[in-house]
Amino acid sequence: MALNYPNRKPQVHKEANKANLGMDLETMINESNEYFLNNDIAVIHKKPTPIQIVKVDYPMRAKAVITEAYYKTPSTTDYNGIYKGKYIDFEAKENHNKTAFPLANIHPHQMSHLKSIIKHGGIGFLIIAWNKYNEYYLVPYEVAEKFWDAAYKKDERKSIPYETFKKECYLIKEGYLPRLNYLKVVDEVYLNKKD
Amino acid sequence: MALNYPNRKPQVHKEANKANLGMDLETMINESNEYFLNNDIAVIHKKPTPIQIVKVDYPMRAKAVITEAYYKTPSTTDYNGIYKGKYIDFEAKENHNKTAFPLANIHPHQMSHLKSIIKHGGIGFLIIAWNKYNEYYLVPYEVAEKFWDAAYKKDERKSIPYETFKKECYLIKEGYLPRLNYLKVVDEVYLNKKD
Repeated sequence: MALNYPNRKPQVHKEANKANLGMDLETMINESNEYFLNNDIAVIHKKPTPIQIVKVDYPMRAKAVITEAYYKTPSTTDYNGIYKGKYIDFEAKENHNKTAFPLANIHPHQMSHLKSIIKHGGIGFLIIAWNKYNEYYLVPYEVAEKFWDAAYKKDERKSIPYETFKKECYLIKEGYLPRLNYLKVVDEVYLNKKD
Repeated sequence: MALNYPNRKPQVHKEANKANLGMDLETMINESNEYFLNNDIAVIHKKPTPIQIVKVDYPMRAKAVITEAYYKTPSTTDYNGIYKGKYIDFEAKENHNKTAFPLANIHPHQMSHLKSIIKHGGIGFLIIAWNKYNEYYLVPYEVAEKFWDAAYKKDERKSIPYETFKKECYLIKEGYLPRLNYLKVVDEVYLNKKD
């Protein structure tokens, strides 16, 4: 598979941090996945947004037009795929707060999905962007679960403090290609490899 | 995870073959995947249909309504997930012919996606239903690739003959729970296990 990224999307980049200002997390991850795919590093895709289609028109000589549809709650996470023979599964979320990430941003079924994935031998985590700090963290499922269970089984705080990200999660460095090399962190955390 | 299938969807079934008449392949696979999930056997989901959303209305006090959208060509296969620690990926197609399965039913990018999956250590195949015979086959990617390459590189026949299904593919038996136990065939073909 050829590296065709630079030819397909010509863009002017300055310093990575500045270039990424205003680029949302989803775009950064999608571009990274495109790089991983084109360079035969991994096959990871974002799942399409689930839509409930109610009405479709078929105009003559034109393609079908969906004229009434609604967003559905996703039953799984947004991203999955394969890397070095391992099943990879994660959810990506942006956080606009300064001191904590509210657990309300995660759906309960996304947590149970990740739990199942790990039980079956896969790698499951969250990628959380701190927009205020321009920081991106890989949050192991186990860390999120600890706070999730405390919140909903023991009625404790309903968020993960920034301190926990610093201490128990893994900073994903920004770059040019790929934008967000989260697989390097996967190597270190789950596959016990260092460059 | 509890086995909650029988309680959630009470249904009356006669003989499996008759009960499945008229049930489309997608429904059969989705119900099987639900059984696999509820019984903690595997986590395999159908990806949502990719939609290009053009216009969304936000009526007061009501949820967002998509009022103009179009179907997009999928960039991957329909199904993926994890089974016994292995990444599983497949496309499902129905065939209404009697003597051959037309390759035009498969998108080129679905073939290249499956090829990548196998290269990265995953299990990739097609499930093809022969509606005329009420038969369901697991078609290893390699078998499909042989005919694909002959068709599009050597300009040979553009279909896979029924005989090839009989000789080189694997019949998936229909049942009650799960409807279509394709993972039993995965065990035998890819994980070298027999009951």
